[in-house]
Amino acid sequence: MNAHYRPDITTATRPLTFTVEAKDERGTVIPTAIAGEHPLTLYIDKREIVTLMTLGAYPEALAIGYLRNQRLINNLEQLISVQVDWEVNAVAITTRNGLHDLDGRMKKRTVTTGCGQGTVFGELMEEIDQIHLPDNSVLTQDMFYELMDHVRHLDSVYKHAGAVHGCALAKGSEILYFVEDVGRHNAVDAIAGKMWLDDVDGSDKIFYTTGRLTSEMVIKAAQMGIPFLISRSGLTQMGYEIAHQIGITMIGRAQGKHYLLFTGEHRFQRT
Amino acid sequence: MNAHYRPDITTATRPLTFTVEAKDERGTVIPTAIAGEHPLTLYIDKREIVTLMTLGAYPEALAIGYLRNQRLINNLEQLISVQVDWEVNAVAITTRNGLHDLDGRMKKRTVTTGCGQGTVFGELMEEIDQIHLPDNSVLTQDMFYELMDHVRHLDSVYKHAGAVHGCALAKGSEILYFVEDVGRHNAVDAIAGKMWLDDVDGSDKIFYTTGRLTSEMVIKAAQMGIPFLISRSGLTQMGYEIAHQIGITMIGRAQGKHYLLFTGEHRFQRT
Repeated sequence: MNAHYRPDITTATRPLTFTVEAKDERGTVIPTAIAGEHPLTLYIDKREIVTLMTLGAYPEALAIGYLRNQRLINNLEQLISVQVDWEVNAVAITTRNGLHDLDGRMKKRTVTTGCGQGTVFGELMEEIDQIHLPDNSVLTQDMFYELMDHVRHLDSVYKHAGAVHGCALAKGSEILYFVEDVGRHNAVDAIAGKMWLDDVDGSDKIFYTTGRLTSEMVIKAAQMGIPFLISRSGLTQMGYEIAHQIGITMIGRAQGKHYLLFTGEHRFQRT
Repeated sequence: MNAHYRPDITTATRPLTFTVEAKDERGTVIPTAIAGEHPLTLYIDKREIVTLMTLGAYPEALAIGYLRNQRLINNLEQLISVQVDWEVNAVAITTRNGLHDLDGRMKKRTVTTGCGQGTVFGELMEEIDQIHLPDNSVLTQDMFYELMDHVRHLDSVYKHAGAVHGCALAKGSEILYFVEDVGRHNAVDAIAGKMWLDDVDGSDKIFYTTGRLTSEMVIKAAQMGIPFLISRSGLTQMGYEIAHQIGITMIGRAQGKHYLLFTGEHRFQRT
């Protein structure tokens, strides 16, 4: 199979915002945009795996990225098709040869900190030692500022309706993908799915998230092979410790021209 | 057993913030407070159930509230002891008579939208029809403003270190509990645990959260029997629909003297 193999997938995007009426402090009726939220149940070879609550922007990429980040599949070639059907809120995933030891993998799970899915199968923490991020990529402060400027100008569900987290994958200051979801881990996973679908490598990329840099967020970025992790929010102790251990270049509290560089200084050029 | 039965519990609070060094945009080293994050694995009668990532402020109440909100236990009397041991990042829960159909309950799970745990066992959505919130409680706008003022003046981990969500349980404008955690569902669950431990009823209470009003957040508040749900953030479509269906009084985007009342207007007096 060639590098650009793609399974047979639907493109079943849902409307992203809805308008409801609310009353403000003066009793005035205010039409208010709110973010969509839909259950999406994943079936692998007709077996029910999990139900994700999602905005529904990229359900196929979400399903694929979920399987990737949960380590349930190792490459896209394992999948024949990924078919979303919103009439039954389900995505049917057909594999080529079944999944090895699905029962064993589903037994151990960690319900983690992050917004969203918050479920990781298997002994995730043990995998950290095996992660080696490339050291030859560099991010300059100028490029970083330019990227933050591009992020700020994105048209987003968040601006209209709030209640979603956003993630972006960038190369230098260029945004390749921007995904929002009601759970921030869904947004991460959808980007992981898109990267596989487009055969995009993480080693020279930058991952941006509006969400907090918790342990699971750092681990996911590292597992996707991405050496730069940027957030406008703060971080947790375990997020910091893992970032330090794997040497990812992690920047938090990125707002305007301000930021804090926490780890992986060797890939960042301030001047 | 009397109404104030309490199982034998530890009080194993962890330090909530840590200081690490970061470099800002001028290259200046900035000592920066970050929130704690610790894995806590729940064992029920020596059987491993789940690992939660938590700030560690109220691990015993978190464990109890998790079991309550996941519908794994129906009352506190089922528990003999809840013992947290941070040396092994575990909480050992001993039940009086074991848990009925634990296997069956753990089979079906929904990985939901919210920050934090995001896991709910069983057919949660089917339970919504059975929820009846009391209609005789009233919240006035003045009391609401007073409560928001109290919330604003709380000393919080968020003010020092960010990266946590906060939840409060209030009666009128008086805050009874305030819990922060790296996952907002942990904060909700810890409050559910505290309510049981102190034999506090939800029917005349107000639940405040810094987090978004997603489906799971609305369901949890309703399951705890609380008729008022307030957030400074926005909401999702399913959060709105469920709130409408169960008639909970839901206020979003509460900031200063502004707010939006979405559902359950009959319990709210604007003037």
